[in-house]
Amino acid sequence: MGDPAGVGPETIASLWAEKSFHQTCQGLVVGSAPVLRRAVALTGSSIEVVEVDSPQELSPSPALMPLISSDDGEAADVPAATVDPRGGQAAYDALLVAVELALRNDVDAITTAPLNKAALAATGLPLPGHTELLAQLCHAPNAAMMLYLPPGKSVLGRVGLGVTHATLHTPLAHVSAQLNPQRITTVTQLTHDFMQQLLITNNQDQPPRLGVAALNPHAGEQGLFGLEEVETIGPAVAQSQAAGLNVSGPLPADTLLVRAAAGDFDAVVAMYHDQGHIALKLLGMHEAVNITLGLPIIRTSVAHGTAFDLAWQGRAQITGLKQAVQTAATLAPLRHQLAWNQTSSS
Amino acid sequence: MGDPAGVGPETIASLWAEKSFHQTCQGLVVGSAPVLRRAVALTGSSIEVVEVDSPQELSPSPALMPLISSDDGEAADVPAATVDPRGGQAAYDALLVAVELALRNDVDAITTAPLNKAALAATGLPLPGHTELLAQLCHAPNAAMMLYLPPGKSVLGRVGLGVTHATLHTPLAHVSAQLNPQRITTVTQLTHDFMQQLLITNNQDQPPRLGVAALNPHAGEQGLFGLEEVETIGPAVAQSQAAGLNVSGPLPADTLLVRAAAGDFDAVVAMYHDQGHIALKLLGMHEAVNITLGLPIIRTSVAHGTAFDLAWQGRAQITGLKQAVQTAATLAPLRHQLAWNQTSSS
Repeated sequence: MGDPAGVGPETIASLWAEKSFHQTCQGLVVGSAPVLRRAVALTGSSIEVVEVDSPQELSPSPALMPLISSDDGEAADVPAATVDPRGGQAAYDALLVAVELALRNDVDAITTAPLNKAALAATGLPLPGHTELLAQLCHAPNAAMMLYLPPGKSVLGRVGLGVTHATLHTPLAHVSAQLNPQRITTVTQLTHDFMQQLLITNNQDQPPRLGVAALNPHAGEQGLFGLEEVETIGPAVAQSQAAGLNVSGPLPADTLLVRAAAGDFDAVVAMYHDQGHIALKLLGMHEAVNITLGLPIIRTSVAHGTAFDLAWQGRAQITGLKQAVQTAATLAPLRHQLAWNQTSSS
Repeated sequence: MGDPAGVGPETIASLWAEKSFHQTCQGLVVGSAPVLRRAVALTGSSIEVVEVDSPQELSPSPALMPLISSDDGEAADVPAATVDPRGGQAAYDALLVAVELALRNDVDAITTAPLNKAALAATGLPLPGHTELLAQLCHAPNAAMMLYLPPGKSVLGRVGLGVTHATLHTPLAHVSAQLNPQRITTVTQLTHDFMQQLLITNNQDQPPRLGVAALNPHAGEQGLFGLEEVETIGPAVAQSQAAGLNVSGPLPADTLLVRAAAGDFDAVVAMYHDQGHIALKLLGMHEAVNITLGLPIIRTSVAHGTAFDLAWQGRAQITGLKQAVQTAATLAPLRHQLAWNQTSSS
């Protein structure tokens, strides 16, 4: 459900009313029944929201939304478009229940609606966002966040473009200190494993081509503008190459991302949040999907936030959620092959 | 001319052969006559390269290229596509002569072909690139580098999109320490002055709308991921607003740049090199023009580098140089109104 104050509930309600959603997957909502009922009313549909105890209990349809409650009763009191600790808690509680369902194989994949990072922080939980919460809940410290765009007019790659982030919710001034060769090789391996499965699913047998972004302008220009390329990123790339991966870098981020969009690379390993996010949002703000790599479960998410400027006005776009669900459905059959448990503990 | 080992000479020769170039401006090359003659031969044209002592001496045409020599005789010996201190020196010498011509009003504007930063460093000159050299040669310490894209299919703004950089050739780990409110307000003012002139020239009388990018992911998310937004960028934006500018920020860089491309802003003030470069190169790698703001002269440049992978093979694209010359020609009549001398000393 995400944060009840944000656009999550109404986008879920709008998507649920579409027939194509039910052809993509067998849906189940985790969250607050009163909040989802209000969202259904807002979007003008007549979907019946019914609380269930397990995914098997009721069959979803455009007229019926089975919902497992993660609600302590407070979510419905959260005002729209407001940072409220109860909203942060509700998003967390929904995630907790959904992750348990996925870890028990009661669901094949989870897709999360946006949470608000300030509301989450207001609950006192010490983790900045979904990705970090998932890493903790799944005991997967090596988890990494990928933004993924399917092939389209701005992304010409064989199976789209994935950009994984070596650091994420890190102040920019601390990024350099947080980078180390081990983290970069782990994220490169996770990215390789993921893209390889996607290629195989699309009947492509060449290995994924990966580009690792530099940290500094002009990739440090031979050490003139920073040494991380020489001391940290270069050795990591060499190690990934030695492990047999088709990977180049460190490459200047600005031209690497242009080449990746043009199809020269299947995926990019970015060093920090905005390096990947600026590119992927420009290439497809509304189609981008957030995928957490390195978990024992499949998890996708919309790439946008709670959008308090739009929330509960009935005009939020559902393209992002639709694409996130579609991607989760594509990945669900691959969850055992991906074997991220092993990779992430290596 | 830029570095003789790079794509500069051949792109100049190719552009010179086009009739439209001579309708845009009265051209004059500053550099090495033997190098330009070799470039003319490479591109298969029969342009005559003639050394002159002043811009008035000979009229340029598609058949005749007047050239003021900045050559100490060594440029012709620099091998193609190679980092060579003589190549860095030749690019510097050409810049020096061109700047003198512009400062004396003997030319209305200068456009530079790419230099190689490693070759420049190999000469022992302590400055990383054209922008910093120009700031020193013109005694303009507040100069700032803008990447500019004219309106087009990916940039929907009224007069295109400019992205100015508060820091440039700075290791990413040092960016935070180099930022201060004064630098950000200066760059914001330069950006405003520039876009305002461009709007006036295009018969638009509304003031430019500027967005200032945050440094940290999610604009620091209320201080959770860094304090620069609260302590440095926010106060700078408030100061610019108090000075009467139409400016918003700090805004999360990833969504700000999407909104700016969509036409919500005329220009963006970026905090570091790749923040602006990733966006502008994705939006128009070959059309982007590099403009130095805050100089007493008009100077534009291509946004690409020496491209040693292509240089002296006769297949370098001239779109960038053509656009850079076109922009210089548009700006030339505005050079007194822009009054950057005053702004930069305020």
